[in-house]
Amino acid sequence: MPADPALMELCELADAIARKRVSSREATLACLERIEAWQPHLNAFVAIEPEEALGLAAAADARLAKGEPSGPLDGVPFAHKDMFYARGKVSTCGSLIRRDWVASEDSTALARLTRAGALRLGTLHMAEFAYGPTGHNAHLGHARNPWNGAHVTGGSSSGSGAAVAARLTPAALGSDTGGSIRMPANFCGVTGLKTTVGRVSRFGAMPLSHSLDTIGPLARSAADCALVLQLIAGPDPADPTTAHIPVPDYRAACERPVRGMRLGVPERFYTEGLHAETERVFGQALDLFRAEGVEIVPLALPDQARLSAAGQILLAVEAAAFHRQWLKERPQDYGAQVRARLENGLAVPAVTYLEALRWRGLALAEHIRAVSGVDAFIAPVSATPSPTIAESDVGGAPGAEAVIQAVTRFMRPVNYLGLPALALPAGFTGAGLPVGVQIVGRPFEEDTILALGAGFQRASDHHKALPPLPGGTA
Amino acid sequence: MPADPALMELCELADAIARKRVSSREATLACLERIEAWQPHLNAFVAIEPEEALGLAAAADARLAKGEPSGPLDGVPFAHKDMFYARGKVSTCGSLIRRDWVASEDSTALARLTRAGALRLGTLHMAEFAYGPTGHNAHLGHARNPWNGAHVTGGSSSGSGAAVAARLTPAALGSDTGGSIRMPANFCGVTGLKTTVGRVSRFGAMPLSHSLDTIGPLARSAADCALVLQLIAGPDPADPTTAHIPVPDYRAACERPVRGMRLGVPERFYTEGLHAETERVFGQALDLFRAEGVEIVPLALPDQARLSAAGQILLAVEAAAFHRQWLKERPQDYGAQVRARLENGLAVPAVTYLEALRWRGLALAEHIRAVSGVDAFIAPVSATPSPTIAESDVGGAPGAEAVIQAVTRFMRPVNYLGLPALALPAGFTGAGLPVGVQIVGRPFEEDTILALGAGFQRASDHHKALPPLPGGTA
Repeated sequence: MPADPALMELCELADAIARKRVSSREATLACLERIEAWQPHLNAFVAIEPEEALGLAAAADARLAKGEPSGPLDGVPFAHKDMFYARGKVSTCGSLIRRDWVASEDSTALARLTRAGALRLGTLHMAEFAYGPTGHNAHLGHARNPWNGAHVTGGSSSGSGAAVAARLTPAALGSDTGGSIRMPANFCGVTGLKTTVGRVSRFGAMPLSHSLDTIGPLARSAADCALVLQLIAGPDPADPTTAHIPVPDYRAACERPVRGMRLGVPERFYTEGLHAETERVFGQALDLFRAEGVEIVPLALPDQARLSAAGQILLAVEAAAFHRQWLKERPQDYGAQVRARLENGLAVPAVTYLEALRWRGLALAEHIRAVSGVDAFIAPVSATPSPTIAESDVGGAPGAEAVIQAVTRFMRPVNYLGLPALALPAGFTGAGLPVGVQIVGRPFEEDTILALGAGFQRASDHHKALPPLPGGTA
Repeated sequence: MPADPALMELCELADAIARKRVSSREATLACLERIEAWQPHLNAFVAIEPEEALGLAAAADARLAKGEPSGPLDGVPFAHKDMFYARGKVSTCGSLIRRDWVASEDSTALARLTRAGALRLGTLHMAEFAYGPTGHNAHLGHARNPWNGAHVTGGSSSGSGAAVAARLTPAALGSDTGGSIRMPANFCGVTGLKTTVGRVSRFGAMPLSHSLDTIGPLARSAADCALVLQLIAGPDPADPTTAHIPVPDYRAACERPVRGMRLGVPERFYTEGLHAETERVFGQALDLFRAEGVEIVPLALPDQARLSAAGQILLAVEAAAFHRQWLKERPQDYGAQVRARLENGLAVPAVTYLEALRWRGLALAEHIRAVSGVDAFIAPVSATPSPTIAESDVGGAPGAEAVIQAVTRFMRPVNYLGLPALALPAGFTGAGLPVGVQIVGRPFEEDTILALGAGFQRASDHHKALPPLPGGTA
């Protein structure tokens, strides 16, 4: 008898369904059962659609029985961050303003998964309009960390992090504009892939900042991320910003040996002021890579704080431009923190914005020169483990801004430069909270960072740890 | 014995040199002679390089004697607006700040003409950093209209308009960001082609506004513009904004019959508040087109004032962003009017800029729908004939802003939408000042407007009129 399908990693589950060792119905029921048990503790879902999911599963099982699967994900149930539009479905974007908004077209990323046979369990929690790093949400209630419900999930792909960690979905799409995939992956103990700007179509996904927005998977392993990326990557006529650059075989990349690869450890910016447990886990991750034959070398990078500042300008301005009309017409319908963030962007002069935009090419060229001697660089995802929901509540806690700063400061240089980055679990604090690292690659070298991540995961089992159901048995 | 080479139109001169009926030396000497006679009256040149020009002419004559011409312009002398960089040469950009600045690379447009054999007589007057519509220049002195030295040439390609009109160069490159080719063509009585954004590489040309800048020729006829455009149009790896759209045969387009073509006359915006003589000439131009079998139809266009306002935002912001550093470090080195214009751009919020940028695609789609029933539309270039230098001096004359407004108001909708437009001489005022019309096409349909312009010029001789040398005989 096979193991609980909900506990399988995505690659394993997809394979088991394709081989009819597990039915789509069994997998879907297993996920729905866990969702029912966990949802009160996590608030990870915005909408749960059990009947529809079981209907889709029945159709998938029928296709599989006839030997006519739709694609490599046929019959696999999923849920995604509630910002990937699906025609005829509500996409709240974590907001009150879009609480009842029905999409009229399909997100390309989502449609590509659906074409591969993926099912839909419902939609996942997110920060309001993806503009928040913690998982707080004034409208939906806060998302809660599966490892400790008093702690944040990280955001903005809060539900994606929590639901994958608790095995409510084998993987979930998220978006990363200022860390929104990597932070929840980090705090929830899952693997999250921020893609290169231009690698995955953003058509039909809620925009936050068109210069910075990227879409990618959160899953339980690098190999699972590779499977999803393989299906969603590549040009899309509906998104002219997608690059016409060949899509590598990401799954094969996960089999590459890592011995002899070179990982840079940037000096100072990413290693100063770390929480002691973060520092310990980071050191252990380096040791593990060394033990696998990866060469760890010091790396001098250009001023990362300046990159952060430039990225912050692009984000603030582009978000404000997208929201300007609503800010005028219905300011009361925003959460106070999100409205304050958006209003900041209204004050930025256009010349400052253009300067930040124009500097990017030069800064990227400089970065690429600096990393020419390594395959990728590695850094902590955040300076501290997950803070509590209370201490990171900007509206309430006095020191919350500093807490947020420690959470987010290693994110934005990567976003500004549009680089791919893989966040993966690397250990736990004494109190049982996950701590991750990020591996940052050159543009369009997702294959390289996936290879490194998969190598790390072959040699460790942090990514296999399962959070216990509070007061339960799962 | 052949006619004075300087009085030949470009196509005729290039042909005469290619057939060795005129030597490059004769052509160059003829131009230099006219430059010497006219320069004190026009201030059209920034630098005159007689020895170098004659050296280049000798080399061209040697190539031609051997039957090995460089290309279709071999041996033809030219001068261009002083903003097209040539390696090792000063490019003042009409400014004090770049008075001694030596370019380290070649403008693609200029290099393509040079590769076709074009020679260099020197460089032409322009508004400081191309940011002025009249031909005023605080550093170089004002350019003067060959038809009446008390009047403006129009700007910013002031020297290009004046030098072509006075037959000091058979054609000249200019740039049009807010009318800078069409206005001097209009006021000086020459033919000027504003190209579609993306049609001609801007690499190595001084930027004013990257969203709006276009490069094109001023010459004596549509056919001459076609010859130059043929050589400079098309993709350039050094300018990624150039479009990979096939380049039509522009010279062949100039031979197309115009009978049966349809020209729209936009209602209201381009026809209200015209000077009586402008209105008369415009009416006569429509009559001439009708007589040639062109159908003149009324045309409803979307709100042109709104397009102007959006274009003004892009121009102000992008110009200010380019100049920001100099504005901080050496504000005193700008002319007062140009500095004031640039400083206006510093105050524009980024969200306003992004809104103006984002609206363009929608506005262009709406425009293209509106003009679907015509080949092009026709309008006056400006609401009045050339004002005097004194009355349009923003620093001095009290009503100057209103004068400038009448000069520029028909320009910016075309720039905002990135459309091609051909300005061509259509008549004269009673006082002998030229009055032009502009024919505005769809994106990348330079061939259509050149066909219409050439048809007009086959049936009229306004473009052949020669301004008399003040107190002279030429």
